[in-house]
Amino acid sequence: MKKINLKRFNNSNIRGRNRELNKQKAGQAPGLLIFSGEKKVDLVKGQQYTYDSKDINFIESENIDTLFHLFDDSKVNWINIDGLSNIPLLEKIGKQFNLHTLLLEDVMNLNHRPKFEDYGDHIFFTIRMFNGVKDGTLDYEQVSFVLGENYVISFQEKPQDIFNIIRDRLTTGVGRMRQKGADYLFYRLIDTIVDHYFFAIEHFADELEVLEEEVMANADDQSLVKLQHLKKDLVYLRRSVLPVRESLSSLIRSESLLIKKDTGPYLQDVYDHTIHVAESLDSCRDLLTSIKDLHINALSNKMNEVMKVLTIISTIFIPLTFIAGIYGMNFEYMPELGFHYAYPVAWVVMISLTIIMIIYFKRKKWL
Amino acid sequence: MKKINLKRFNNSNIRGRNRELNKQKAGQAPGLLIFSGEKKVDLVKGQQYTYDSKDINFIESENIDTLFHLFDDSKVNWINIDGLSNIPLLEKIGKQFNLHTLLLEDVMNLNHRPKFEDYGDHIFFTIRMFNGVKDGTLDYEQVSFVLGENYVISFQEKPQDIFNIIRDRLTTGVGRMRQKGADYLFYRLIDTIVDHYFFAIEHFADELEVLEEEVMANADDQSLVKLQHLKKDLVYLRRSVLPVRESLSSLIRSESLLIKKDTGPYLQDVYDHTIHVAESLDSCRDLLTSIKDLHINALSNKMNEVMKVLTIISTIFIPLTFIAGIYGMNFEYMPELGFHYAYPVAWVVMISLTIIMIIYFKRKKWL
Amino acid sequence: MKKINLKRFNNSNIRGRNRELNKQKAGQAPGLLIFSGEKKVDLVKGQQYTYDSKDINFIESENIDTLFHLFDDSKVNWINIDGLSNIPLLEKIGKQFNLHTLLLEDVMNLNHRPKFEDYGDHIFFTIRMFNGVKDGTLDYEQVSFVLGENYVISFQEKPQDIFNIIRDRLTTGVGRMRQKGADYLFYRLIDTIVDHYFFAIEHFADELEVLEEEVMANADDQSLVKLQHLKKDLVYLRRSVLPVRESLSSLIRSESLLIKKDTGPYLQDVYDHTIHVAESLDSCRDLLTSIKDLHINALSNKMNEVMKVLTIISTIFIPLTFIAGIYGMNFEYMPELGFHYAYPVAWVVMISLTIIMIIYFKRKKWL
Amino acid sequence: MKKINLKRFNNSNIRGRNRELNKQKAGQAPGLLIFSGEKKVDLVKGQQYTYDSKDINFIESENIDTLFHLFDDSKVNWINIDGLSNIPLLEKIGKQFNLHTLLLEDVMNLNHRPKFEDYGDHIFFTIRMFNGVKDGTLDYEQVSFVLGENYVISFQEKPQDIFNIIRDRLTTGVGRMRQKGADYLFYRLIDTIVDHYFFAIEHFADELEVLEEEVMANADDQSLVKLQHLKKDLVYLRRSVLPVRESLSSLIRSESLLIKKDTGPYLQDVYDHTIHVAESLDSCRDLLTSIKDLHINALSNKMNEVMKVLTIISTIFIPLTFIAGIYGMNFEYMPELGFHYAYPVAWVVMISLTIIMIIYFKRKKWL
Amino acid sequence: MKKINLKRFNNSNIRGRNRELNKQKAGQAPGLLIFSGEKKVDLVKGQQYTYDSKDINFIESENIDTLFHLFDDSKVNWINIDGLSNIPLLEKIGKQFNLHTLLLEDVMNLNHRPKFEDYGDHIFFTIRMFNGVKDGTLDYEQVSFVLGENYVISFQEKPQDIFNIIRDRLTTGVGRMRQKGADYLFYRLIDTIVDHYFFAIEHFADELEVLEEEVMANADDQSLVKLQHLKKDLVYLRRSVLPVRESLSSLIRSESLLIKKDTGPYLQDVYDHTIHVAESLDSCRDLLTSIKDLHINALSNKMNEVMKVLTIISTIFIPLTFIAGIYGMNFEYMPELGFHYAYPVAWVVMISLTIIMIIYFKRKKWL
Repeated sequence: MKKINLKRFNNSNIRGRNRELNKQKAGQAPGLLIFSGEKKVDLVKGQQYTYDSKDINFIESENIDTLFHLFDDSKVNWINIDGLSNIPLLEKIGKQFNLHTLLLEDVMNLNHRPKFEDYGDHIFFTIRMFNGVKDGTLDYEQVSFVLGENYVISFQEKPQDIFNIIRDRLTTGVGRMRQKGADYLFYRLIDTIVDHYFFAIEHFADELEVLEEEVMANADDQSLVKLQHLKKDLVYLRRSVLPVRESLSSLIRSESLLIKKDTGPYLQDVYDHTIHVAESLDSCRDLLTSIKDLHINALSNKMNEVMKVLTIISTIFIPLTFIAGIYGMNFEYMPELGFHYAYPVAWVVMISLTIIMIIYFKRKKWL
Repeated sequence: MKKINLKRFNNSNIRGRNRELNKQKAGQAPGLLIFSGEKKVDLVKGQQYTYDSKDINFIESENIDTLFHLFDDSKVNWINIDGLSNIPLLEKIGKQFNLHTLLLEDVMNLNHRPKFEDYGDHIFFTIRMFNGVKDGTLDYEQVSFVLGENYVISFQEKPQDIFNIIRDRLTTGVGRMRQKGADYLFYRLIDTIVDHYFFAIEHFADELEVLEEEVMANADDQSLVKLQHLKKDLVYLRRSVLPVRESLSSLIRSESLLIKKDTGPYLQDVYDHTIHVAESLDSCRDLLTSIKDLHINALSNKMNEVMKVLTIISTIFIPLTFIAGIYGMNFEYMPELGFHYAYPVAWVVMISLTIIMIIYFKRKKWL
Repeated sequence: MKKINLKRFNNSNIRGRNRELNKQKAGQAPGLLIFSGEKKVDLVKGQQYTYDSKDINFIESENIDTLFHLFDDSKVNWINIDGLSNIPLLEKIGKQFNLHTLLLEDVMNLNHRPKFEDYGDHIFFTIRMFNGVKDGTLDYEQVSFVLGENYVISFQEKPQDIFNIIRDRLTTGVGRMRQKGADYLFYRLIDTIVDHYFFAIEHFADELEVLEEEVMANADDQSLVKLQHLKKDLVYLRRSVLPVRESLSSLIRSESLLIKKDTGPYLQDVYDHTIHVAESLDSCRDLLTSIKDLHINALSNKMNEVMKVLTIISTIFIPLTFIAGIYGMNFEYMPELGFHYAYPVAWVVMISLTIIMIIYFKRKKWL
Repeated sequence: MKKINLKRFNNSNIRGRNRELNKQKAGQAPGLLIFSGEKKVDLVKGQQYTYDSKDINFIESENIDTLFHLFDDSKVNWINIDGLSNIPLLEKIGKQFNLHTLLLEDVMNLNHRPKFEDYGDHIFFTIRMFNGVKDGTLDYEQVSFVLGENYVISFQEKPQDIFNIIRDRLTTGVGRMRQKGADYLFYRLIDTIVDHYFFAIEHFADELEVLEEEVMANADDQSLVKLQHLKKDLVYLRRSVLPVRESLSSLIRSESLLIKKDTGPYLQDVYDHTIHVAESLDSCRDLLTSIKDLHINALSNKMNEVMKVLTIISTIFIPLTFIAGIYGMNFEYMPELGFHYAYPVAWVVMISLTIIMIIYFKRKKWL
Repeated sequence: MKKINLKRFNNSNIRGRNRELNKQKAGQAPGLLIFSGEKKVDLVKGQQYTYDSKDINFIESENIDTLFHLFDDSKVNWINIDGLSNIPLLEKIGKQFNLHTLLLEDVMNLNHRPKFEDYGDHIFFTIRMFNGVKDGTLDYEQVSFVLGENYVISFQEKPQDIFNIIRDRLTTGVGRMRQKGADYLFYRLIDTIVDHYFFAIEHFADELEVLEEEVMANADDQSLVKLQHLKKDLVYLRRSVLPVRESLSSLIRSESLLIKKDTGPYLQDVYDHTIHVAESLDSCRDLLTSIKDLHINALSNKMNEVMKVLTIISTIFIPLTFIAGIYGMNFEYMPELGFHYAYPVAWVVMISLTIIMIIYFKRKKWL
C-alpha cells in the first residue's frame, strides 16, 4: 500500500510562508502529507456536480465517501474541495483516482509555482487565483486541478469563490457547458481564473496611476515607500502569472488525449489572454520605472528650488550688507559720512541694486 | 443551432477601455456577443465590392441580406463592415461564412492583441490601424479581416477610412488588383495599414525631435511631463506593432492554401516593412532614453549655474564685508582709524580683492 | 596502468582559493592528483551502507579496503568519503570503480562548477552544498556523486553533514528508501541539498529585509558596504545554484539507464525546485537593486534636508543682519537714529519679517 | 506586359528622407517606379565589363541598349549603374533580366534595410556602403546587387566609387578574378564594402577617443551635444551593419546554385568580418556609455568644486565677521574695547582661526 | 600554381593596430600575404618535435626545409613557428600542407577573432594567448594551430613561451603525451592557453579589489580613470575569451575524424573551463559596475559632507552675527546699550545659542 507523503518547501514571494515547518522537514522522505497553509479553514468541505446534457446532481459533504458514491462514470463529475487541512481526505482521493504522491504534495503546497504535468490518464494543473481586492491588497490563493477522462477535481485553499458563475450555469443549464465534457469544464475554470488576472492588473494599474499623480504633484518619502511596495507586488504578480503562460503552452502542445480536438481553440484563446496579461505586466513595469524616474526628478527639482531661494536671498542681501558695512566703519576721515544726502543716496543705491538683481533673476527664470 | 457568444476582456494600453463591462462579464460563458466599444457609430453600414478583371459591382447597405444577395462565388467579393455595434448582423455573417464563435468575439474586441489564426477554409487576421493624427494624438482603431477562397471581409470600428485609395483603384480598374484574387486584395489592405505605421512613427519622431530641442534649450517640468506622455505612447505603439510582425511571420509560414504562391513575395515584403517599423521603434526608444539623459543633465547644469552665482557673490562679498567689519570695531586703540588715507586704502584693498576674485573665476570658467 | 593525475584550476567566486598552487600547476599534464582545499580535514574517513529491503550493514573506516570488503553487488551500496586530502584513497576508488582521470580531478576540485556527466556505466554529478549559517555567513562545500548500477559514492569536503536524516531513515528502515535502488538514494541526496538552498535564500532574504529597513530608517556608508557584500554573496549564490538547474535538466534528458523510469518524476520534481530557487534569486536581485535605489534616494533626501536648514537660517537672518547693518552706519544725517521709537520699531520689523519667512517656509512644506 | 511599379517607404535613421513623397504614395498600388533620392545625379550612366580569363571588354554609356549589345553569355558580365533617377532604364533592365517588380522597387529605395533574397535564377542583395568621411561625417549610399549565372548588376546612388581597385584588377588581369566566375566578382564587391565598414568604425572610434579626452579634461554642454550626435550615428551604423550579417548568413545557408562551392569559404570569411564589425560596434557602444558616465561624473565634480570654494570662503570669513561684529557693538560697558592691545590680539585670534581652518581643509583634502 | 595572398583587416580592441596598412589594402584582392604585426621579431625560427612513444627528435632552424626533412609521417610532428614576418616561409608551409589561402591570411592576422574551421583533412584553430603580466598590463599574443592527421603546426607572434612545460614533458617522456597522437598534443596546447586565462582574470580581479578598497577609502578622479581603463580591459578580455567558448563548442560538435574518441572528454573539459572563465568575467563585470556605483556614492557623500560643514558654520554664526549687528546699531535710544551687564548677557545668549545648535546637529547626526 502506497503511503502518502511529505509536504515540501513552499515559498511565497521570496521565502516561504511557514519557515518553521521548512526547517523541520528539509531532507525528510517524501512520505508525510503536511498542510502548509495557515489553517485558515478548519472545516474541509467537498462539493460534487455530476451532470450530462440531460440532468445534474449536486451534493455537498464533509465525507468524501458520500461524494464518491455519487460519482458516475457515464457523466461529467466535478469534485471541488475547499480547504486542504484534511490530510486523510486527500489520501483517500489520491487512492481513489490513482494520483501520484508528488501530485498530492503539490496540491498541498500553497505556494507552488504554476505548473502543468501530464500523468497519462490524468492531467495536473496548479495555478494562482486572484479573488479580488481585500483591504487594499490583492487576495489570492493556490488552486489545483486534476482533469481525468470524465472528472475534474479542483482543490481550493478557501471556500470563497469566483467559480459561482460556473456553478450557476451548470445548474440552470444555460450555455454549452452541460453539452460538453470534462475538458470543457476544465477550460472554463482556467478561463475564469485568467479573466480575473485582468482585475488584479487593473487594480495594480489604478494604484500606479494614483501614485504617478501623487509623485507629479508632490514627491515625498511616502511615495517612495509606496513605489517600493508596488514594485514588490509587481514582482509577485509576474512570478504568479508568467509561469501560467508556459504551463498553458505545454498543455496545448502536450496533445493529451484528455483534451478533445474541440476544446483546443478555447485553450488557445486562454493562452492568448495570458500573453496579453504578460504584456500588460511589462507595461506596468515600464510605468513603474518611469514613476521612479519622475520621483528622482522631483527630488532634484525640490533641491533646485531650495537652492534658488537661498541664492536669490543671498545674492540680493550680501552686497547690500556690504554697503551697510562700509559706512559702519569708524575711520576718522570718511568724507561721505558728513554729506547731507549720503544716507538717502545709500538707500537709492541699495534699492537700485536690488531691482537690478530681481531683473537678472527674472531673466534667468528663477523668479 | 450554434449561439453566438460572450464579449471578453478588452484592455487598452494597460487596462481595458470598458472596465465596467469586464466586471460584469468575467467568468461568464463564451456565449453572448457584446460590443466592447464606446458606441461611436450607431449606424452600422456594409459595403460590398464584387469584381473580376472584366467588371465590378458595388453596393452599400445597412441590410446584410442585400449584401449577401450580390455575393458571387465566381468573382472576388470584398465585404466591409463599418461599426460593430450591430450584433445580429455579425451573427448573420458568422452563420453565412461558418465563422467560429471565438473569431466573432475577437472581431468585436476593440483592443485585441494583433493576431493571425488559420481556420482551414478561412484565415482570421486582426491588426491595429493608425488613421493619422487628430488633435495632436494618433487616431487608431481595431480592424479585423477574414480571408476566404473568394472573399475578404473587413470589420472596422469607424467609417472613416484609409482604404479609399484601394476602392478608387478597384473602381477605376487601374493596376493589377482586378486581375488578382482575394488574397492579393487582402495583401493590399494589410500593406496599406502597415504603410500608415510609418506615419505614426514619423509623427512620433517629430514630437521627439521637438522635445529634444526643447530640452536642450530649456528643460523644465513641462518637458518631463511630455517625456512621460511620449514614453507611454511609445509603449502603446510597440504593443500594437510588434505582434503584427509575429502574425505576418505566422501567416507566411502557415502555407495556407488561401495564399497563392504569387502573393507570397508581396507578403514577405510587408513583413520586411514591419521589421523596419520595429527597428524604427527601437531607435525611437533609444532617442527617448537619451532625451531623458539630456533632461537629467539639464537639471544638473541648472543647479550648477545656481550654485555658481551663489558662490561668486558670496566669495566676493563675504571677505569684503569682513574688512568693513574690522574697521567697524570700536576698539579705542586702532591706529588705522586715525590715518588720513586709511579709508581710500581700504577701498583700494577691497577693489583689488574683487578683481583678483573675478580673475580667479574667469580662470575657472565660472564667468 | 593508468596513473591518476593533475589537480587543475579551482576558482572561488572570481579567483581560486589557492592561487599559489595554480601558478605552479598550469600547463602541467593532467597526471597528478593534488588536493586543492585548505587541508581542513587531516583525517579522511569513509562510511559505507549496504542495504536492501531486508537488512542494512554499516561500516566506518579510514581504510578503503575495509569498505570494499563489505561491498555487495546484489544490494545498494552507499560509500561516503569525508575529506579529500587522501589522494591514494581516491586513486584506489578510481581503479576499483573504473572512474576516468578527469572525473577524479573534478572530485578534488573544491570550486568546480556544478555539472553532470554521463560516463555510460556511471554518472558523475557535482554540486555545491549549503550546510547552514556559521558566524553570519553561509557555510558551503563542494559535494560530488558517482552513481553506478548498484552504488552511490559521495565525496564531501568536511565531515559535518546534512545527510544525517537520510542515514537515520536508512537505518530505521522508515519510508520507501530501502525498497528502492541506488538511483532513488541518489535522488534523495540531491533533493536534500536542493532543499537546503531554500535556507540559504531565506538567510539571504532575511539579511536583505533587515538592510531594507535600515536604509529606510537611516542610510549611511555602512549600509552601502553591507549592500556591496550582499551583492557579492548573491553573485556567488547565483553562480552556485544556476548551473545545478542545467545539470539536472541534462540528467533528466540524458535518459541514462541508471535512472529507472520510476525515479524520473522525482528528479523532475527536484528540477522544479531548482527553477523555484532560481526565480527566488531573481527576486532577491530585484530587491537588492531597489534597496540600492532607496539608498541613493536617502542620500538625496539627506542633502535636501541639509540644504533646507541652511536656506531657512540664511533666508531669515541675512535680511535681518542687513537691517541691523543699515542702522550701524555712521552717516551724520540719519534721521531715524534720533527717533525715540526707532529701536523698538526696528525690532517689530525684524520680527514681522521672520514670521513672514516662517509662514513662507511652512507653505513650501520646508518646516 | 508587366508594368513596373511603386516606390515605397524609405526611412533613414528613423523617418524617411523624403517624407513628402511618402504622404502621397502610401496605399497606392505597387505599380509606379518613383525615385526616392534627392536627385543627386541627373546623369545616369552604366558601365559594363565583359571578361573571361583571356580578354576583357569595357563600355560606358548612357544608353542601356549599348550595354546589352556587349553582353556575352559565355563570359562574365558586370553591369554597373550610377544614379537611379532614370526609371525607364531600370524598367528595361528589369525586363531584360526578368527581375521581379518588388526587386526593382527595392533597388530604387535608397534607405532599404540590408537584405538578401533568392529568386532562383538570380540573387538580390542590397547593402549600405560607406565611401569614407566627407566634411567630418560619414558618406554612405545604398548599393544593390543582382547576381545571375554569368552576370552581376550593381546599382549605385552616386558615381563616386570604392570599386575602382576591382576595376583596375579586372583590366590589368592581376590576381584570380579573371579566372573566376560571376559569384567571385560578387564576393569581391561585397568584401570591398564590408572592408570599408572598418573605416567607418575607425572614424567613429577616433571621434569617441577625442570626445573621451575632452570630457576628461573639461566636460561642458558642448560635449553632451557631441555625445548625443555620436549616439545617433552609432544607432545608424548599427542599423546599417547588423542586418548585413543576417543577410550574409542567409546567403550562405541558402545553398543557391549561383554560389559555386569554391566561393563558399570566401563568403564565410566576409561573414566572419561582419561579426567582427558587429562586435566592434558593441565595444563602441560600451565606450559611449562609459563616456556618458564620465560626463555625469565630471558634472558632479564641478559641482563639488564650486561647493568647496563656497564652503571654504564662508567657513573662514563668517566666524571672522562675527568676531568683528562683536567688537562693533555699542555697549557702554565692554571692557575689552579699552584694553591697549585688544586690537592686535583680535587680529592674532582671527589669523589663528584662519590658519586652523586652512589646516582643517588641507586635512579634508579640500585644498 | 596558387599564389599566397592578401593580409586583411586586423583590429585590436576596436580599431586595428596598423591602420595605415588597412587604408592601403582594403579592397585589394586576397592575393598578397602581408604581415600585420609591428615586426617585433626580425628572426623567424621554427622548432620541430617528431616523436612517438619510443623516441623523440628535436630540431630548431630558420630554414623550413630543414624542418620538413625531419618530418616523419609515422610519428607525431609538432612544428612551432616563432614570428610571422617571414612570408615566403608561410607560403612554403601552405604549399607543403595544402593550406587554404584564407587560412594563411588568418594566421598572419594578429588580431583575428578566435575561431575554429574544419578543412576536412586539417583543422584550423586561432586563439588569443595571455603570457602573463608585463609592466602592469597583460601581455598577450595571437596563436594559431593547424591540426592534421599526424602533425600540429603552431604559429606564434613572439618566441617567449608558455609551452615550455609541454616541451619538457615531451622531452622527458613523463606522462601520457608521448603515447598519444597529434590530437592529444593539440588538446594540451589549447588547455595550457585556457589555463592561463585564469591568470589574466586573477590579475584583473586583483586590480578590481585594489580599486574597490581605494574607492571605499577615498574616491577621486584618479579612481575614475582607473575604472575606465579596467572597463576597457574587461571589454578586451571578453572579446578575446568568449569566442573561444564557441570555437571549442564547434570543434567538439564538428565530429572531425582528426579528434579521436579518446580525446573528446579532454576537449569537453577544456570547454567547461572556458564556461568557468566566461562566468568569472561576468562576475568581474558585476563587480566593476558595483565599484562604479560605490564611486558615485562616494562623490555624493563628499558633497554631503561639504554641505554639512557649510551649513553648520553658517547656521551657528549667521544668527550670532545678527545679534552682534543689532547692538552695533547707532540708535540713540537703545536702553540695552547702557545696561551694565548687557555685554556679558549678550555673550551668554550667543554661547547658549551655539550650544543649542550643536545639540541640534548632534541629534541630526551631522556631527
